Amino acid sequence: MKNGLTVYGLDNLIKSRDFKAIREHTKNWRPADLANLMEPLSAEKEAVVFRLLPREQAARVFSYLQRRRQEDLLKAMADRDVIKIMNDMSDDDRTTLLEELPAKVTQQLLNKLSSRERSIASQLLGYPENSVGRLMTPHFVRVRPQWTISYALDHMRRYGLDSETINMVYVIDKGGKLIDDLRIRQILLAAPKSHVSDIMDSRFIALKATDERETAVRAIKDADLPALPVTDTQGVLLGIVTVDDILDVAEEEATEDIQKIGGSEALEEPYMKIAISKMVRKRATWLVILFLSEMLTATAMGKFENEIAKAVVLSIFVPLVISSGGNSGSQASTLIIRAMAVGEVHLRDWWHVMRREVLSGLSLGGILGVIGVIRISAWHYLFHSYGEHWFLLALTVGIALVGIVLWGSLAGSMLPFLLRRIGLDPATSSAPFVATLVDVSGLIIYFTVAAFILRGTLL
Amino acid sequence: MKNGLTVYGLDNLIKSRDFKAIREHTKNWRPADLANLMEPLSAEKEAVVFRLLPREQAARVFSYLQRRRQEDLLKAMADRDVIKIMNDMSDDDRTTLLEELPAKVTQQLLNKLSSRERSIASQLLGYPENSVGRLMTPHFVRVRPQWTISYALDHMRRYGLDSETINMVYVIDKGGKLIDDLRIRQILLAAPKSHVSDIMDSRFIALKATDERETAVRAIKDADLPALPVTDTQGVLLGIVTVDDILDVAEEEATEDIQKIGGSEALEEPYMKIAISKMVRKRATWLVILFLSEMLTATAMGKFENEIAKAVVLSIFVPLVISSGGNSGSQASTLIIRAMAVGEVHLRDWWHVMRREVLSGLSLGGILGVIGVIRISAWHYLFHSYGEHWFLLALTVGIALVGIVLWGSLAGSMLPFLLRRIGLDPATSSAPFVATLVDVSGLIIYFTVAAFILRGTLL
Repeated sequence: MKNGLTVYGLDNLIKSRDFKAIREHTKNWRPADLANLMEPLSAEKEAVVFRLLPREQAARVFSYLQRRRQEDLLKAMADRDVIKIMNDMSDDDRTTLLEELPAKVTQQLLNKLSSRERSIASQLLGYPENSVGRLMTPHFVRVRPQWTISYALDHMRRYGLDSETINMVYVIDKGGKLIDDLRIRQILLAAPKSHVSDIMDSRFIALKATDERETAVRAIKDADLPALPVTDTQGVLLGIVTVDDILDVAEEEATEDIQKIGGSEALEEPYMKIAISKMVRKRATWLVILFLSEMLTATAMGKFENEIAKAVVLSIFVPLVISSGGNSGSQASTLIIRAMAVGEVHLRDWWHVMRREVLSGLSLGGILGVIGVIRISAWHYLFHSYGEHWFLLALTVGIALVGIVLWGSLAGSMLPFLLRRIGLDPATSSAPFVATLVDVSGLIIYFTVAAFILRGTLL
Repeated sequence: MKNGLTVYGLDNLIKSRDFKAIREHTKNWRPADLANLMEPLSAEKEAVVFRLLPREQAARVFSYLQRRRQEDLLKAMADRDVIKIMNDMSDDDRTTLLEELPAKVTQQLLNKLSSRERSIASQLLGYPENSVGRLMTPHFVRVRPQWTISYALDHMRRYGLDSETINMVYVIDKGGKLIDDLRIRQILLAAPKSHVSDIMDSRFIALKATDERETAVRAIKDADLPALPVTDTQGVLLGIVTVDDILDVAEEEATEDIQKIGGSEALEEPYMKIAISKMVRKRATWLVILFLSEMLTATAMGKFENEIAKAVVLSIFVPLVISSGGNSGSQASTLIIRAMAVGEVHLRDWWHVMRREVLSGLSLGGILGVIGVIRISAWHYLFHSYGEHWFLLALTVGIALVGIVLWGSLAGSMLPFLLRRIGLDPATSSAPFVATLVDVSGLIIYFTVAAFILRGTLL
């Protein structure tokens, strides 16, 4: 046979998970020959080979297969064994080898499978986790522009029963491309003898199956529609996502963000159900990272050991001063993380945000600084707690607070921008991480201010 | 006139905002007399008096009014002047004086007003802020059980156009009480000559207008329906809430929780739009509260001033040790706050959660403790940083970490239960608050362990 590739050779390549070779060997075959070569394989192995074909070739091979074999192939795509084989693929291979499936195959696949099978097969469809492709349902009503309204209504009565929503109807062209969306009331109000094309405005909002699901949340909120259509990269309509599903997504995303802000990895399972060992692992990761970075505080404090020995009273205010920086940092970072997540703040706004945070940081630092000075003065008059240089101490704490709170607000608000800029999830700059960063720099600010003000007196 | 009350007297009572007197003077009048008495008043003042009537009496007065006056009255209910007058009412008065409006008036009110007017009038309806009553829309399809399916379909075609969803249809009895909900497909599939009652199962889920909107989020997720009906306390159908509106609510609630967890008040306005002065106020409140409580750390440190003077090296690990407690506390509290918000954890689970947190806290504390001991030992061998008693110091830090992380996990996880138990929002136990609490107690744990282990050597 061509290239000497036999069905046994193919079988061995699958066994040794040599996906690149399979693609290399099969990509130039004619569809008919390839269909013949694949015939003796089990449906599961056939599915693996089929999935590795370039998109165009896959479309041609599929249409060449007889209806019965098409169905077996589709069924096999949701088979756990097939998924297992494909999961042995490295992420790099996944990007280079797995092209989008032909729209026709995707549609049939989605329609054939139960929703449970669909969620298994979605891995094979090549839609990344957390993408719109994993959310869509194939149950919706599609109509053609040349139909009369009364024919469309008939069609809806017949096929609308299983659809997830009948508030929206989608218009497609001959090739399956989405060309408009219609609200049900537009159809009900139109003259029965007029055509679908008469009420079309060809303005619609659609999602791509590869879009992130956070995009879908924003889009459906902005569009204020009960569902949005999902297309492949060529604009062919594959399915819809409904606002019910989006509600679940929005809640999951918020949960993940909150857990990250709280300084652990996203649990991804309900708190009461996750195994304790697993939860400890997810929480330990960040706690350990934070602990390791917080060790820098010990290093920083070590550098100031002489100052502390001379003026023990300085050490007394360390927790107060650095925690204020941490708190203002958490505030700023959570505000920005959430504003980014709901689409209120974008990358380009960083300068605007920075200006706001400089003002807020100075005001907040000023407020805390004044309270700090009052507290130390009061304790001096009441208990004579802080020796003869109490006022210089108060000044040190007050000025350090302004600097530290300002720095906390700036660091907390800018870190999410930085993380997003380099392609990470802003929520990962979880508040405790900012707090740790600000703790270390806060110590340096505090002792530097102290060295400056107390030189010649306490130090 | 009866009780000597004249229209001038009424006018004066409104001017002096004496709502109790208005209610007292009018409540025993016969509806016809009352309608006559109110006639010379402006529509706005009439609305104020009307709103203060007991429910039954209001229903009778309303039905006594002529159609024209009914409409004027309804219009006036969304008038800003009326709202302003009613807003001068104390919260106590609001609870005792403002009964639920008669269902018939509520329905007409909701139907008459634009969605903007509706949101103004909703204050007057007496539904508390953040209640389902403020979310509902009056645009839905209702049918009667004795109708034939074909009549119901006709009705839907006529009135369904303006409805928010036609996926759901609601069945009401003669008195307007909700008796069932039907999915559109049930109706489309039924024989046209059969009756609505034939396909009813009288099982439905409904919200009360006074329910909190968080309840609606949970209910609509559990029911997996595109909309839920809303009734008054007597079960009369007032409106529906759709999943679109619920999506907005879910996002707002998550935003509020995140902002509270981040240690500020909920901003309630987009970050980029809120005035800086307002934002500073909202952030300052919590920062100042946290600062004041964090002052306890200065007091606690002050108590250990002698120990620090003797062993300055102890102070070096203060930020490291207490921040670990703070981080584990934030983790635990955010996990529990979110699990409560999405309904995974309930008050009754506190004991179960506590057991989980004891295990997690011990494991996490153990991990950090071991790392801490390794760090100090390593620095000893590498740099001879910590003097001859380095091992006792390492032991102090290690043991203190176990205790502090355990305590942080427990305090962080139990505080949300405590807050909810006393009727507050668990998110208010924002992570920084837990951190502050744990900072103070962490210091005490650390220095107590030190006193115990280092007595006779460093101390």
